[in-house]
Amino acid sequence: MDNSEELKLLGFWVSPLVTRVEWALMLKGITDYEYVDEDVTINKSSLLLQLNPIHKKVPVLVHKGKAIIESLVIVEYIDETWINHPLLPEDPYEKARIRSFAIFAEKLIYDSYTAMASQGEAQEKLVESIIEAFEKIEEEIKGKTFFGGESLGFLDIALGWISLWLPAWEELGSMKILHPIKFPGIALWVQNFTSQPVIKEKLPSKERIVKFYQERRLVRMGTS
Amino acid sequence: MDNSEELKLLGFWVSPLVTRVEWALMLKGITDYEYVDEDVTINKSSLLLQLNPIHKKVPVLVHKGKAIIESLVIVEYIDETWINHPLLPEDPYEKARIRSFAIFAEKLIYDSYTAMASQGEAQEKLVESIIEAFEKIEEEIKGKTFFGGESLGFLDIALGWISLWLPAWEELGSMKILHPIKFPGIALWVQNFTSQPVIKEKLPSKERIVKFYQERRLVRMGTS
Repeated sequence: MDNSEELKLLGFWVSPLVTRVEWALMLKGITDYEYVDEDVTINKSSLLLQLNPIHKKVPVLVHKGKAIIESLVIVEYIDETWINHPLLPEDPYEKARIRSFAIFAEKLIYDSYTAMASQGEAQEKLVESIIEAFEKIEEEIKGKTFFGGESLGFLDIALGWISLWLPAWEELGSMKILHPIKFPGIALWVQNFTSQPVIKEKLPSKERIVKFYQERRLVRMGTS
Repeated sequence: MDNSEELKLLGFWVSPLVTRVEWALMLKGITDYEYVDEDVTINKSSLLLQLNPIHKKVPVLVHKGKAIIESLVIVEYIDETWINHPLLPEDPYEKARIRSFAIFAEKLIYDSYTAMASQGEAQEKLVESIIEAFEKIEEEIKGKTFFGGESLGFLDIALGWISLWLPAWEELGSMKILHPIKFPGIALWVQNFTSQPVIKEKLPSKERIVKFYQERRLVRMGTS
């Protein structure tokens, strides 16, 4: 890689959306970039506000002076810019299938996060609808090593949060979503996924995530 | 076009998401397809449930027997499959910019729809946040004929609902979002956009949309 001075990632270690971008870079063999970690829950730097004035959120990837935002858009950008280890298939139909599934699954991150911060009946209802959606994910992964088939692809990156953040949120919210007996395909995928060196290297520890949310009291303060 | 037997669109005339797909097909010069209109607010046909078991929603485009879902994913599929009149630029950075802007703007459809069905302070707050977001859209369109520059592109299709459904919802919800003095660039774009024959042909009348919502009592029954 000769992009050392040209590639910069603004991130925050606890964000599963930032980790997606790090995984995509790892899969492409790109390790030579500048990583700037900033705690967006405390302060938004002038650099972030300048690079992402619309959302004021991480991740932001800066390549050759140009800022790209939205984690899955960044992953597609990376896939189109560095063409080794393709993350999306070339066939328009297969690509569309993956894109629409990613949109469907995307809602679940926010729902799961919200469920963590909810209680009582509101939490129960939300958990129920999330579990129903996970049945579609189970169908999609059943019998496969990765969502991408034999090698890691776009959906593995998009759904990577299930392997670590979801269990952390389940613990923090005292809720159970990923019953391994109900979701054997997903349970196996979590094993396959997290044992990949390129994935493992960028996974923070679950304990650290749980501690972060507990210290910041980011749970049990949302809807109820 | 020789796709008459191979291309089918499941839609519902009042949906701005379905109209997106019709616009994309028009822009590609594809008029020879089967259109099946079904009122998804009353009944979901077995055909729809079979073709879109995940969302059970229209639009669904069926091409050569394969179903594609999610309106903007369908538009990208159409763009990749019929390559005349490109809707997205080839450059990965420009493409990423458009994709992330489309994601940002997408939330506004749902927010505007929700605002229509809201009242009092809840509506005021939502309208305020929508207007703030429209300032970013105004910045994006200012000085341009279309979001795509000189010719209609992906963002014009994605934001097309602003030209007709938003005014209908404003009327139905007794709210004002698109002040023409505050948003002169958007006001001019609405004129440019709706005067294009390929767009105009697929625009239902505002009166018909308003009447539909009034008859179905779909407004003033949501959140308050």
